[in-house]
Amino acid sequence: MSELRHDPVTRRWVIISAERSRKPTEFVQPERHPTSPQACPFCPGNERATPPEIRALRPPGSDPDTPGWQARVFANKYPALSIEGEPDRRAVGIYDRQRGIGAHEVIVESPQHEGHLADMDTVHVERVLGLYQERLADLYRDLRFKYALIFKNHGLTAGAMLPHPHGQIIATPVTPRSIAAELESARAHYYNKTRCLFCDILNQELEDGTRVVSADEHYAVLTPYASRFPFECHIFPRRHNHSFAEEPAASIAALARTLKDLLARLKGVLRDPPFNYVIHTAPNTAAEKRRRDYWGTLEVDYHWHLELLPRLTQIAGFEWGSGLFINPTSPEDAAAFLRDSPV
Amino acid sequence: MSELRHDPVTRRWVIISAERSRKPTEFVQPERHPTSPQACPFCPGNERATPPEIRALRPPGSDPDTPGWQARVFANKYPALSIEGEPDRRAVGIYDRQRGIGAHEVIVESPQHEGHLADMDTVHVERVLGLYQERLADLYRDLRFKYALIFKNHGLTAGAMLPHPHGQIIATPVTPRSIAAELESARAHYYNKTRCLFCDILNQELEDGTRVVSADEHYAVLTPYASRFPFECHIFPRRHNHSFAEEPAASIAALARTLKDLLARLKGVLRDPPFNYVIHTAPNTAAEKRRRDYWGTLEVDYHWHLELLPRLTQIAGFEWGSGLFINPTSPEDAAAFLRDSPV
Repeated sequence: MSELRHDPVTRRWVIISAERSRKPTEFVQPERHPTSPQACPFCPGNERATPPEIRALRPPGSDPDTPGWQARVFANKYPALSIEGEPDRRAVGIYDRQRGIGAHEVIVESPQHEGHLADMDTVHVERVLGLYQERLADLYRDLRFKYALIFKNHGLTAGAMLPHPHGQIIATPVTPRSIAAELESARAHYYNKTRCLFCDILNQELEDGTRVVSADEHYAVLTPYASRFPFECHIFPRRHNHSFAEEPAASIAALARTLKDLLARLKGVLRDPPFNYVIHTAPNTAAEKRRRDYWGTLEVDYHWHLELLPRLTQIAGFEWGSGLFINPTSPEDAAAFLRDSPV
Repeated sequence: MSELRHDPVTRRWVIISAERSRKPTEFVQPERHPTSPQACPFCPGNERATPPEIRALRPPGSDPDTPGWQARVFANKYPALSIEGEPDRRAVGIYDRQRGIGAHEVIVESPQHEGHLADMDTVHVERVLGLYQERLADLYRDLRFKYALIFKNHGLTAGAMLPHPHGQIIATPVTPRSIAAELESARAHYYNKTRCLFCDILNQELEDGTRVVSADEHYAVLTPYASRFPFECHIFPRRHNHSFAEEPAASIAALARTLKDLLARLKGVLRDPPFNYVIHTAPNTAAEKRRRDYWGTLEVDYHWHLELLPRLTQIAGFEWGSGLFINPTSPEDAAAFLRDSPV
């Protein structure tokens, strides 16, 4: 069982993972991708190498955990957090801890070992995004979970252990600090101005134009004014909505086009760079409503979005020690390169 | 000229660096260490390859920027921040910016191209730490600088561009968010309890013992209760002191022994892992005192320390997206391995 531990200095929760436990000698060997589909636990035919299927896109009537699927969801074999039990929150002298309760799922996005979302059919990408929505909504039915983060690691240096295209979702019994910080800013802005902070940013950026990569009636792709990473891009729905899970089907079809287009531009400009993306959506409102200090304005002040982080630079001592990032590519230059990229 | 930009959502400052500007094609080639001392700008005989010497440990009467030195300080050739000018703070619609004013220095720690602090004489390490102190005190005479972070990158994956042993110091016109968060926690703790938060942690840890790597009368080395990284270690002076620059000479001699011992243990257990270390010390009190909202209790509530971060795991989408870290090695296991390591 993992443990969540709280540091009173940085006020940060950390997951100390028992299931992923590693000894000193295990750090000495570099991690490697399995190179062949035969050895890949995410490839069709190897369904027994993973925990049982939770959900799949597969022909009606076909058996779970057999080939024939187009996308497939199962629990991570080495989960950061475990599904069974109660948090059992306790003080340990000056510290705080709770048991590592949560969920950790893998969403295999294609039967193809070497696929890339940029090269898949738009309709297929749309169905994968629909699966993300479904898993998020399902995990939020569990009131122990305050948040669920959908994310993707692409490339070894971005933390992907397997090259087979897949996303992940981790549900946590705490609201992660990055989300809490966004909620706090958004709430304060709304309190002062009765407007959504993200809508205000979107309006300013669309008017200015220098950091806009693309925009249609549904979505805008921006390189943020204070980008931490070179070629960092955020995708915002233009119509205000706090919840990715509640985005309507027509909008998810548009998101599939936008995401595929952005990934293709990045592949073009930077030759298939390693990247992470994460979906920032509202916390589990149903769980929050049980608390007396519920953030009651969430629906009006938060605005879900997707953050795409290319992993082109090393994060070194200065960044870890200060929390200040040094970005060698201005967001205006990055947006111009991406706009001009042939798709 | 670099620019400091503020993001209203994450409330984070980012340095958009003009001097380090990189185009898309420059990210495609992997970065490489120069392998030979002949090509190394930090090696003796190549002093003309660096900006002029600011300070050096060299024989009395010898000329600056000539060989014969034991350690040498100069401005970074590609500084993240520039020394000339005033911040010129401005709003840009919903955003904030200021010019990238600051200092960025390199401290070459040895004439040996392949040296490692773990293998140098204790007396030499002591003199290097004395140089760190001297540069910090000197930079704090400039009231434009609110903070100066001393750090070291060791190994390519920890962000070291050159293998030649060196530290760096970056002075910033803002208090970095990691430091601001520590100051806030420390101040709140002192306000409530009239005790230093770090002294309280130190007392609890020394009594408990499971996360203590080593301790003598001057310093204690701990693996933090909520370590973000496997084998993360913090060195704390046992006598309360907010300022690294004001640590007396006898204590710096003890720090040299402690740091060298810790680095040797890490080398032993993990076969010379890549790492970063950073010194967290109080902000520039002289600059802060000009403000009406000065943190007046700094001397009693803050406690300087050195954080050593081995870089053994990839930081992936979940960590970037949530701010929650997954650590696969418990700090208790890490402390036990380091205690048992032959030095």
